[in-house]
Amino acid sequence: MVLRVYLAGPEVFLPDADAMFARKKSLCARHGLIGVSPLDDPPGEPGAQRGADPAPLPRWQAIYQCNEMHLRRCDALIANLTPFRGVSADPGTVFELGFMRALGRPVFGYSTTAAPFSERTSRAAGAANGPRGVDHEGLSIEDFGLADNLMIDGAIAASGGRFFVGDAGAADRWRDLTLFEDCVRAAARIPRARAAPTRPADPEPR
Amino acid sequence: MVLRVYLAGPEVFLPDADAMFARKKSLCARHGLIGVSPLDDPPGEPGAQRGADPAPLPRWQAIYQCNEMHLRRCDALIANLTPFRGVSADPGTVFELGFMRALGRPVFGYSTTAAPFSERTSRAAGAANGPRGVDHEGLSIEDFGLADNLMIDGAIAASGGRFFVGDAGAADRWRDLTLFEDCVRAAARIPRARAAPTRPADPEPR
Repeated sequence: MVLRVYLAGPEVFLPDADAMFARKKSLCARHGLIGVSPLDDPPGEPGAQRGADPAPLPRWQAIYQCNEMHLRRCDALIANLTPFRGVSADPGTVFELGFMRALGRPVFGYSTTAAPFSERTSRAAGAANGPRGVDHEGLSIEDFGLADNLMIDGAIAASGGRFFVGDAGAADRWRDLTLFEDCVRAAARIPRARAAPTRPADPEPR
Repeated sequence: MVLRVYLAGPEVFLPDADAMFARKKSLCARHGLIGVSPLDDPPGEPGAQRGADPAPLPRWQAIYQCNEMHLRRCDALIANLTPFRGVSADPGTVFELGFMRALGRPVFGYSTTAAPFSERTSRAAGAANGPRGVDHEGLSIEDFGLADNLMIDGAIAASGGRFFVGDAGAADRWRDLTLFEDCVRAAARIPRARAAPTRPADPEPR
């Protein structure tokens, strides 16, 4: 069985999103995996998502349903967790990480920003750091030396995955795939028996 | 069966976190629900999480495991999705929302900030808005008129939950529970048969 890997990340917002996912899929294939992009057509019967429903969903709900279907049909997830418009990863990507962890599937992540979460947060939140950091509203700042919120690092560790972190430089931070390929290599070593305890049977590809 | 509701939110970072969760639990009880806080002791045999393991987990992993155990034993989730140190909700909370949605359990959310996600993002991201907004790095800005990233609004809608949004004012934004109680009321109306298709049998409370 070839492992299907969901490619989570804010690449969906790039003007060259299709090209980015093509590069990611190609790296997956090089290591014997199938990369599944959130932008792929909805799985299932051709046309099943379009026209058959008398009251089609609003576009945002249709996108959500499509992503959820792709997630449920994948065996593992690789998330681009590079800080996105703030101190943490893209929330859509974090949602998908939690989703796949709940299903017991291995989750991997990478970030092209090396500064630890606590340092990024203290810098951004106008922190008045005492022995234990707090932000300007008095809320404490996690300081476990992790790459992001502990639920993110914790899920990756609990699933047997890996979180690869390193600086790619501002110009390349959305397009450098060195750490992504580290994730792919790690995912390719997942024992097949572990990968998808509950994945439903695949329809044959057409 | 009394519904168990996981209370997700960045209240864990407040100096008065225990008091906030006590207030939330009390509101749950008033509507016939059991509120479960991420700060509650780990479920299971007393002492099972402490001492029994010859190599105890690092604190961040122990917190992660505890939260995950609480999540799996709850029937529904109410998330405080008020924007947290940026344009979106707290990533730990978003993770937990994805987790519970994957398990097919109803998820509810509230935010004490009324401005739509696209507006908050455009303001924060130094957006050069054309007909379709993009940020200063050229990444597009979602504009579906939603309260947060479409995976968040989408999951709540798909689960049959509700997302309550309104302005509480800066001083009260972490402590006003008006919208939280709206979530509790909505959760209390969940048909019991729908609530927990896969929840494991509870050990008897001691």
